[in-house]
Amino acid sequence: MAASSRPPSHPSTAVRRVRAGTRMSRQLTSMTNNFWTVIPAGGSGTRLWPVSRAGTPKFLLSLVQERRSLLQQTVDRLRFVCQPRHMMVVCGPPHAVSVTRQLPELLESQIVVEPSPRGTGPAIALAAALIERQDPDAIMGSFAADHAVRDLSEFVNAVQGAIIAACQDQLVTIGIQPTRPETGYGYIEWNDDPAFTTDFGAIHRVSSFVEKPDIATATAYVESGRYLWNASMFIWKVSVFMEELRTYLPEVAAGVSRIADAWGTPEQEEVTLDVWPQLPDISIDNGLMERSQRVAVVPAEMGWSDIGDWHGLGTLLKHDEAGNCVRGDTISSGCVNSVVWSDTKRVISLIGLNNIVVVDTPDALLVADRSQAQLVRATVSRLKELNRTNLC
Amino acid sequence: MAASSRPPSHPSTAVRRVRAGTRMSRQLTSMTNNFWTVIPAGGSGTRLWPVSRAGTPKFLLSLVQERRSLLQQTVDRLRFVCQPRHMMVVCGPPHAVSVTRQLPELLESQIVVEPSPRGTGPAIALAAALIERQDPDAIMGSFAADHAVRDLSEFVNAVQGAIIAACQDQLVTIGIQPTRPETGYGYIEWNDDPAFTTDFGAIHRVSSFVEKPDIATATAYVESGRYLWNASMFIWKVSVFMEELRTYLPEVAAGVSRIADAWGTPEQEEVTLDVWPQLPDISIDNGLMERSQRVAVVPAEMGWSDIGDWHGLGTLLKHDEAGNCVRGDTISSGCVNSVVWSDTKRVISLIGLNNIVVVDTPDALLVADRSQAQLVRATVSRLKELNRTNLC
Repeated sequence: MAASSRPPSHPSTAVRRVRAGTRMSRQLTSMTNNFWTVIPAGGSGTRLWPVSRAGTPKFLLSLVQERRSLLQQTVDRLRFVCQPRHMMVVCGPPHAVSVTRQLPELLESQIVVEPSPRGTGPAIALAAALIERQDPDAIMGSFAADHAVRDLSEFVNAVQGAIIAACQDQLVTIGIQPTRPETGYGYIEWNDDPAFTTDFGAIHRVSSFVEKPDIATATAYVESGRYLWNASMFIWKVSVFMEELRTYLPEVAAGVSRIADAWGTPEQEEVTLDVWPQLPDISIDNGLMERSQRVAVVPAEMGWSDIGDWHGLGTLLKHDEAGNCVRGDTISSGCVNSVVWSDTKRVISLIGLNNIVVVDTPDALLVADRSQAQLVRATVSRLKELNRTNLC
Repeated sequence: MAASSRPPSHPSTAVRRVRAGTRMSRQLTSMTNNFWTVIPAGGSGTRLWPVSRAGTPKFLLSLVQERRSLLQQTVDRLRFVCQPRHMMVVCGPPHAVSVTRQLPELLESQIVVEPSPRGTGPAIALAAALIERQDPDAIMGSFAADHAVRDLSEFVNAVQGAIIAACQDQLVTIGIQPTRPETGYGYIEWNDDPAFTTDFGAIHRVSSFVEKPDIATATAYVESGRYLWNASMFIWKVSVFMEELRTYLPEVAAGVSRIADAWGTPEQEEVTLDVWPQLPDISIDNGLMERSQRVAVVPAEMGWSDIGDWHGLGTLLKHDEAGNCVRGDTISSGCVNSVVWSDTKRVISLIGLNNIVVVDTPDALLVADRSQAQLVRATVSRLKELNRTNLC
C-alpha cells in the first residue's frame, strides 16, 4: 500500500511510448509553456472500502501500480503535458501531510490546503484564481486525483486537442468514448457537427451533461453514439474560466479572488477562514459546466477508469487465465473472475469462487458478489449509523 | 470457542425429553449397569480448517453448542446411557491436557493417552482390554468424539436396541437412515429380514460395509432402501469383541492384552512404549467390522451428522430466513444460504453472497463455494507441502 515518494526516472517506457506517437509536435511544447494543471484531491472513495477509508482515501492508495498512489500516477501523467512548477494539488487538512509526503517534488506553494471540503467548484476556482495571479494568460487543466488512464499517449493527444480548443475561448472537457452501458458514470451529450477540428481530432459542442443513468438509459446512450463519459477532465483559459465563474457562480468568483489576493500575505489564513466557509458546496459540473454556453468536448479513447468499485479495479489489475486478480498470500482452486485484495499477512484459501470479491484488512473483511460491489457504500453508511467511524 | 469445563446441570431440557420418551424402561437401567463406553478422540477434522487445526482438532471445538465442545457434548449424551465411571476417552499426547481440562468429571483412569495415533482399531481394542479387566461381563459401546446428534431420545433408544442385540453375541453397529445421497459418508448394507426384534426396533444382519461412494452410487444406495450411513457407533460384549479381535487382528489382541496387564503397574509405560509402536495403524471398520461374520445393525433416525465440513456444520447451526448461518460481527445484505464463522473481532461485510462459506481466524481466512467446502482439505495438504505447518 505504501506509496513511494520517488517519481519514476525518465525516459520511462511511457515516455518512449509518447515520443513514438506521431502527433507529438514542437508546436505543443511552446503552447504548453503556459499550461497549468490542478488536481482536486478530495472524496473518500467509500466504494473501495475497507481499503479506502476517510483517513486514507482512494487517491492516496497504490491500487493500480505498486508503490505509486493514484495521486502520484496522476502527477506522473501530467508531467507529459505540464511543467513541474505549473502543477497544483488542492486537498483537505486531513490529507495535507500524506499528499506532501507523496509528492516531495512539489513546492509548498503547489499544495493548496482548503480549510474544509466545498466540492470541486470552489477548489478548482481557488486554484484558477491563484494561477491567474501568476500567469493571466495561463491555460489550465483540472484532472481528478483518483482515476486511472491506461493509454498515456492518447491521454496526451486528448489534452493537446483540448488545449487548442481552449485557445478558442471554450470551457473544454475531455469525454471518453463509452465501451459499455456503465451506470456508474455521468455522461456528456455532444453535437455531431464538430465545432472545429485540430491536428489532434475534432472538437464538438456540448448539448448537455447528464447524471448517472439507469441501465436502460445508459444502453440507449451508448447505442446512440451521441454520449461520452464525463471523466472530470477540464481545460480552459484561466481568464475565460474566471469570466464564466463571475457569471454563474459570482459568490465563488468573488470569494476565491479575495482569498487569492491575500494568498502568501500575513492575511492569508484570516481571509481564508473568513471567506471559505461561506462558499457554497458545489461541483464544477453542476455549478459551471452544465450552465455555461461555451462548453466544448474532445472525444477520446484512453483506457480511462474512475476505479469506482472493486469490480472496476479488478478490470484494471493483472489477472490469470481464469480471470482472477489476486493480491495476497493465497491458495486457490477452481476460482474464476474473482478479485482478491489483501492488506494482511493472513493466508487466504479460496475454493470454487465465481465472480466474488474478497478484501482483507486488519480490522475489516469484505466478501461480495462482484456484480454488487458498488453496494459496499451501504456498509460504510451502516457503520457510520452505528458510530463505528473508526472503521470508515 | 472456549469450551466450559462444567457439564450442564440436570435435569436439563434434554433429560426431560428423554424421560418423556415412551420406550424408556426400568429393564434398561439394570441392563446398563454393566454398559461401558469409550470415545476414541482422534483425527484432526481438516475439512473444518482454518478453525480446526492439528493442535485444536474438531472434537475440542465448540462448533454446534456454545461453550460445549463436540467431545463434551458426546460425554453429555452418553451420560443418558452409561454411568459416569464407566466412560473412557482415548486420546493422543498433544490433546491430553485439553481433554483433561474439558472433562474434569472424569478420573485419571478414565482418560487413556495412547503414545501415537494407530487408528480406531488399536484405540478401541486397548479400551476393551482395560474394561474387560474391570468387568469381564461388560457391554461396551464406542462413539466418535466429534459427531453431532440432534435427537437425544432417538439416540438413547438406538443404543438400548443395540445393547439388546449385543447381548445376542453380535458386534452391533448403529446405522443412520440416509436422508440424502451423501458422498462424504461410508454406508452399511443390511439384510431386509430382521435377525430379531426388540422393544426398541428391529435388528438386522449386515451384508457389507462400503466406503464413501460417488454421487451416482450414493443415489442408488438411498433409493434401494438397503443402505444406512456408518456413524461409527459400535456396541458389543467386551468378551465377544476380544474373541473376534483374536481371530481377525491377533497381533492387536495380543498387544493390547499385554498393555492392559501392565496398566496401572510400574511397567505400564515401558510395556506400552514397547508394544504400541508395533501395532498396525488400522480402523476398527477395516480391521474388524468388515471381516467379522457376526455383525448386526440397528437402523436409527436421530439427526446425526459427522460435521464433515463447513457445509455440514451450516446445516446444524441456527439460520435466518434466507438460510444464512452467521457467527461474528457482520453487516450483510442480499445473502442467501451462506455460512459465516468468525473467530476474530473484525467487522465482516457480506454483499450478495449465494451459497458461500466465509471462515475468519486471526491467521487464516477461508472463502469457498459451499458445495465445494470439502475441498478445504486440499488447502491443508498444500500448506503442509509448503512447510507452513503452523497454519495446519
